[in-house]
Amino acid sequence: MALNKKPVTGMKDILPEEMVIREYVMDIIRSTYAEFGFTQIETPCIESLDNLNCKAGGENEKLIFKIMKRGEKLKIAEAKEENDLADGGLRYDLTVPLVRYYSNHSAELPNPFKALQMGNVWRADRPQRGRYRQFMQCDIDILGDASNLAEIELILATTTTLGRIGFKNFEIRINDRRILRALALNCGFPEEKLDEIFIILDKMDKIGTDGVRAELIEAGFDADKVDSYIGRYSGMQEADDPVAYCLDYLGDTLEEGVADSFKEIISSVKAAGGDHYKLVFDPTLVRGMSYYTGTIFEVAMPEFGGSCGGGGRYDRMVSMFTGQSVPACGFSIGFERIIMLLMESGFKVPGSASRTAYLVEKGVDSETLVSVFKEAASEREKGRQILVVRMNKNRKFQKEQLTAQGYTEFKEFFKEGLK
Amino acid sequence: MALNKKPVTGMKDILPEEMVIREYVMDIIRSTYAEFGFTQIETPCIESLDNLNCKAGGENEKLIFKIMKRGEKLKIAEAKEENDLADGGLRYDLTVPLVRYYSNHSAELPNPFKALQMGNVWRADRPQRGRYRQFMQCDIDILGDASNLAEIELILATTTTLGRIGFKNFEIRINDRRILRALALNCGFPEEKLDEIFIILDKMDKIGTDGVRAELIEAGFDADKVDSYIGRYSGMQEADDPVAYCLDYLGDTLEEGVADSFKEIISSVKAAGGDHYKLVFDPTLVRGMSYYTGTIFEVAMPEFGGSCGGGGRYDRMVSMFTGQSVPACGFSIGFERIIMLLMESGFKVPGSASRTAYLVEKGVDSETLVSVFKEAASEREKGRQILVVRMNKNRKFQKEQLTAQGYTEFKEFFKEGLK
Repeated sequence: MALNKKPVTGMKDILPEEMVIREYVMDIIRSTYAEFGFTQIETPCIESLDNLNCKAGGENEKLIFKIMKRGEKLKIAEAKEENDLADGGLRYDLTVPLVRYYSNHSAELPNPFKALQMGNVWRADRPQRGRYRQFMQCDIDILGDASNLAEIELILATTTTLGRIGFKNFEIRINDRRILRALALNCGFPEEKLDEIFIILDKMDKIGTDGVRAELIEAGFDADKVDSYIGRYSGMQEADDPVAYCLDYLGDTLEEGVADSFKEIISSVKAAGGDHYKLVFDPTLVRGMSYYTGTIFEVAMPEFGGSCGGGGRYDRMVSMFTGQSVPACGFSIGFERIIMLLMESGFKVPGSASRTAYLVEKGVDSETLVSVFKEAASEREKGRQILVVRMNKNRKFQKEQLTAQGYTEFKEFFKEGLK
Repeated sequence: MALNKKPVTGMKDILPEEMVIREYVMDIIRSTYAEFGFTQIETPCIESLDNLNCKAGGENEKLIFKIMKRGEKLKIAEAKEENDLADGGLRYDLTVPLVRYYSNHSAELPNPFKALQMGNVWRADRPQRGRYRQFMQCDIDILGDASNLAEIELILATTTTLGRIGFKNFEIRINDRRILRALALNCGFPEEKLDEIFIILDKMDKIGTDGVRAELIEAGFDADKVDSYIGRYSGMQEADDPVAYCLDYLGDTLEEGVADSFKEIISSVKAAGGDHYKLVFDPTLVRGMSYYTGTIFEVAMPEFGGSCGGGGRYDRMVSMFTGQSVPACGFSIGFERIIMLLMESGFKVPGSASRTAYLVEKGVDSETLVSVFKEAASEREKGRQILVVRMNKNRKFQKEQLTAQGYTEFKEFFKEGLK
């Protein structure tokens, strides 16, 4: 019986053309984040099911690829439910593993700790075009810094990286969970309904203020409160300076320092961040994950409908492992979307080294063979790319194929020696 | 209940110091193999259980981390055995996935195809010091080249890479499965006993010719045949030119061309390979995997008892997927052992860029903050590494810590402006 040549459902093989682009982008990511003082770390791809099911994963917790117990621990006859049979799972993001890692090693790590992670994650999502069940994530996080230096550094590092990859004219949308909450609470909505409200608010992009108003009323919220709430958002849309309008309105219903800190993030990023993107206050930005506690942000690319990355502050996650709060803030690049955009735009990696193919005829004597490899070695020592390959009978066709692969020079070694 | 801070059993978190060395080594691997015309590819970490259990994995097939079926496909009450519950597994090596990949995509790939893979593999081995259940493998393979150019390129690429990482005075041991077989068959051992004989022969390093002789006789082999067999190995040990001695003895009991090809591999590698290692014919080299069909080789480091990499020719594996044979040959570097050796030797990554830390006092005004980030941005544009960090109350201690992390210059931003 022949084996199955296809990758498992929903996962993909990466072909050389895509791999060249991925490596190029990863190089820029590594070198740029290093300039910002981020250090790379890695955690195992498998985490315990208890950790993965800690509620910080939200909907992703339903999509875990579970690892079966092994040996004596696997008791099939006695098993009642999935978790009797499994003890681990493939990580669905890099945040839960990072927080575990930091909790485990904080004594050995710098404080604040600036981490860069690039690694695969797995989600047993319904397969669909352009979305795979294994994909790369690329996260930077700062742990142990409660100040807004963390947010500013994360946004500058991410936007500098995106700029060096070649992206222009994108937007960073920024908001703060505390602003989001204060706006809703000030309009009289109850604490326990906030998540429901935010899910509707999040659709502002697609359905506009009228749509959001209609959905809130349909959901049973009091029309007066809804109108007051929608009024604030209309006000911000029309204001010359929406940040000032919003923060003035909220006044001291915001915790002390939140408004100033938010304004500083915006002014510092605008001043230092370059003109290849815009930083925009988006009071409707929600970001799905429930663990965010402060600033939140998202990358929006004109070439692409959805988000190409995002993040925010999550000051209460480390305490799930250690019992002690540690301030934390992170920014994740939508690596796979970026690669997809580059592939679709016909992007070519700039300035690859010249490539030479040595075609060696079958039956060359051992002495000639030795000279081929000596010459190749000395060229490679200079950093040149040399392919040593058997000469085909149809040399012309072989050279055409090699030219298509990027080989620009050829050298031929025949049976009687170099012709 | 607090969550578990430790990685899952047998796996490890990679701390920044190790990560720096891993990235440095991976960079050398990528750039050196590129000079030899290898192109990077990637396959999913999960493969179907049918593929993983194809017998090419040998003992590793007992060590698979299995992935549970999901949704309706998981029928716990009806399950009788493990494979009723699982449909995939984490790959235990990169060879089975490579062969599947090649079978799936050969029409889109160059011929011959020179592949570089760097990726994690998983084996549910008993945890022991220095061996982990998740570890990196780094393989190069050439598919579609039946000639000895493949072996020569693989050995030269691997030894050049090891040399650039900094390894000197190691050995590449080389043998050929066809030589191994011919020697045993010529001494009268039956075909079906060869594997058993090779397992004993493989211990020559540790127990010497006398030990191998004793074990073969104990295993029930005829003393005359054993003496003739051992006589050949003693003869090779004493010969001035063991390769010539061995090939002369075998004469035309070897397939046509094997002897010449083997000698050419040795002469070409010796001539072009540099003097940081020795290529040594080791007629007792067996290499465990049953899929090898021709040349086999192994890296032996003086710093380390066991093998630090190995490979060989496996011409019959692609046919498991396609029904058609494709010549194939590969060389795998023992990545984790190399990193371990570098860590133990106190290796430091050479020439990292100068690092500057900007210490920013709490409460600096927004204008100063803007200037901090503008200056950092302009320094980073020049490729310099700048850490922007909140100034601690104990500035002296903070600078000591930053110095230990490699920061050599400091700039301080106080509330009243730059002092």
